[in-house]
Amino acid sequence: MALQLSTEYTGETFPSQADLRKLAKQAGDALQALENGTGAGAQMRGWLHHANGFLQSAEYKRIVETANELRKTTQALLVIGIGGSYLGARAVIEAVRSQYANQLPGAYPVFFAGNTMSAAEYANIGALLEGKDFAINIISKSGQTLEPAVAFRHFYAKLRANCGGDAAQIRRRVVVTTDSETGDLLAQAKANDWKRFVVPGDIGGRFSVLSAVGLLPIACAGVDIAQLLGGAAAAEEAYTSAGAKLEENPCLYYAALRYYYYAIECKSVELFAFYEPSMAMFGEWLKQLFGESEGKEKKGLFPASVVFCTDLHSLGQYVQDGERILFETVVGFQNDPNNITVEIDDPGDPLYFVQGKQISDINATICRATSMAHAAGDCPTLMLQADARDAVSIGWLIYFFEKACAVSGYMIGVNPFDQPGIESYKNNMYALLGKAGKQYDKIRAALQDAYQI
Amino acid sequence: MALQLSTEYTGETFPSQADLRKLAKQAGDALQALENGTGAGAQMRGWLHHANGFLQSAEYKRIVETANELRKTTQALLVIGIGGSYLGARAVIEAVRSQYANQLPGAYPVFFAGNTMSAAEYANIGALLEGKDFAINIISKSGQTLEPAVAFRHFYAKLRANCGGDAAQIRRRVVVTTDSETGDLLAQAKANDWKRFVVPGDIGGRFSVLSAVGLLPIACAGVDIAQLLGGAAAAEEAYTSAGAKLEENPCLYYAALRYYYYAIECKSVELFAFYEPSMAMFGEWLKQLFGESEGKEKKGLFPASVVFCTDLHSLGQYVQDGERILFETVVGFQNDPNNITVEIDDPGDPLYFVQGKQISDINATICRATSMAHAAGDCPTLMLQADARDAVSIGWLIYFFEKACAVSGYMIGVNPFDQPGIESYKNNMYALLGKAGKQYDKIRAALQDAYQI
Repeated sequence: MALQLSTEYTGETFPSQADLRKLAKQAGDALQALENGTGAGAQMRGWLHHANGFLQSAEYKRIVETANELRKTTQALLVIGIGGSYLGARAVIEAVRSQYANQLPGAYPVFFAGNTMSAAEYANIGALLEGKDFAINIISKSGQTLEPAVAFRHFYAKLRANCGGDAAQIRRRVVVTTDSETGDLLAQAKANDWKRFVVPGDIGGRFSVLSAVGLLPIACAGVDIAQLLGGAAAAEEAYTSAGAKLEENPCLYYAALRYYYYAIECKSVELFAFYEPSMAMFGEWLKQLFGESEGKEKKGLFPASVVFCTDLHSLGQYVQDGERILFETVVGFQNDPNNITVEIDDPGDPLYFVQGKQISDINATICRATSMAHAAGDCPTLMLQADARDAVSIGWLIYFFEKACAVSGYMIGVNPFDQPGIESYKNNMYALLGKAGKQYDKIRAALQDAYQI
Repeated sequence: MALQLSTEYTGETFPSQADLRKLAKQAGDALQALENGTGAGAQMRGWLHHANGFLQSAEYKRIVETANELRKTTQALLVIGIGGSYLGARAVIEAVRSQYANQLPGAYPVFFAGNTMSAAEYANIGALLEGKDFAINIISKSGQTLEPAVAFRHFYAKLRANCGGDAAQIRRRVVVTTDSETGDLLAQAKANDWKRFVVPGDIGGRFSVLSAVGLLPIACAGVDIAQLLGGAAAAEEAYTSAGAKLEENPCLYYAALRYYYYAIECKSVELFAFYEPSMAMFGEWLKQLFGESEGKEKKGLFPASVVFCTDLHSLGQYVQDGERILFETVVGFQNDPNNITVEIDDPGDPLYFVQGKQISDINATICRATSMAHAAGDCPTLMLQADARDAVSIGWLIYFFEKACAVSGYMIGVNPFDQPGIESYKNNMYALLGKAGKQYDKIRAALQDAYQI
């Protein structure tokens, strides 16, 4: 496994040698701050050197055992969490297996709840679980975040009913991933003697997919988490030993180039593009990773994502000809195990020019053809190519993007590990819902005043 | 049914009275050009006065009959199409039924192929259809667009094998939606005596969801298309009789305000926000509608979409605190038929402040709380509220956005009905795949020269 970064499709926007020298210096400084722990938020770098150690840990073994047991003894898993406690697991499951992972024959379905307050979604998840002997993995650091906390109470009641209230049966079907030392959920888990896994204190939500937060649901879906962690460990090794020369370190090079397009070429949007529909949720994970890490202090590229060819007939027109505010980052795969050939008997068929070609080869050709078109249309395209869409590559990509994101964040001068903006909606929400507390009383009064409610 | 547009959450960015007067004039002129057919692309306004007439048409009756027959005699429908021949139908099915429409008990599943060249997707769709007696609806104006044309050949071979090659059996399972007068697919359909529906000549792909293009798949999925068309017809009536005063015509007002945020406030991104996960594909439809209509001549807002609460823990941070390049358009629903209450027994539970509340009421409160937070963070929010997430409202919203988009397009001075940029990738693709033709030879030579391939 190795990840290739190609700048072949950047058209005329590629930085000059002088710019590259400056970028190398800036990126190198950011990398050093990250590695040495001298940057902002340094206490949240637990993900930076994580995978190898975690593979050797007792927690890892317990995750594998628990997943195997749940798959054997129950019929579905309901994962309850929001943000990093939702997106990473779903992204990996769909990327490695498929967007239809739950629907394909023989699947042990993994559903997600607690990331919305849609009553329709509550009803739908209820219908999907109806008649199934399901387990719950509730993932929440504090246990107090409203969306997962409400969902847990709702679906736990159903699980308890399924078990006829038998505490031993319930214990086999409830797994808690939470803080190791403090919080409501920890207390509740202890009181009920539920199985517990740890939300690490030094890894933020959007960097947590390779901890128990992501790994338990991922393992339950049948993905080999040893390979996933192995891919991440190999990437860590590669990007640690590669040093600070841009051309020898694709992770650093990518961070430097996206900084260049943002700060020097004044692009507003980084468009992540995939040619595999099952990568759509990985695109959502990338939007969370970059949007939450960089989108602060009125800074940051706006992260968007597309799945081509589908979206070539949607946003493709904009990418080609709209405002020149975009650059594109393609995440592709060099090998495809699906051996499907176009079979056309009639030489008079207007499609006969693709007769006998592999579908995957046509896809790769479309990727090149499109990148050339976009580059010619002044939308520069960075091309990342992993080996294949499997657990090893996805693990590698996760580490690659996490590290590039941290470096990028330092380059634009923000703390890539906090998310202060989320409090604004939360505080308003708690105030309007009537939660007790002086800070909420104050906010409520201000909102009532502003909006005459 | 009526759609409310609220500007309550625009914070300090709301246009001045002088600006509003100017906007009213500009929007009124654009509306007139649209209504009178004096604007660019006027021949593609078939959607503008469509729904009522179509409801009375023989084609409409045949769609309902065909859908009923397919639902009765087969086990699944495979819809093959790309762009407007894919997205509209899927968006409506998921919006009205749910994102789990295919998985819920009793569903007649509707799958989509031909919008990608992913070999994995071919394999997955194959696995989902395995053992099912399925029908195909191939939707393509010319029949020559590569992605659906290849998919049709591939899956038609499977369908033919299912039928043991019996032409009468095949005829009951293949429905073609194509041009009424010309094209390969029309010829093939005639030669095989397949059932045919019409891709209207005066309605472009992204405006075609309320023609046979969208309606047949939508009806097959069990959505009441009379209600859908009825909603659109009511919207047409409302926005035709409302005239050109902004405050009396929400459709025009919305078009004017999004123009204001783009051209005067210099925003780059319109962020469509939903509080219902099943609206995610409707967001994709909006991205196609606006991106393809406006993204040309180096102009246009970049359309993005989010589903909250999920994405409040993802892009939420960026929306609150990142670059101030966004405005937000919320599409919400005032009534929710799902009667689900939070039930918490223990008054000591830290969540007891939501005890007894309806989940849907909490969702509505979060929507308001978030919009207030974003407005305070200088991300203005336009709030659209439909009655309920049903066929009537979705039909209304489709018409609302189509008309607003056309007016918007005229306001920024582009032809909202063409998509010249899509040819760039297509031409490169055909050239690299070796399609015969002098234009492709020329492109191939140029690409080989530029990229040393």
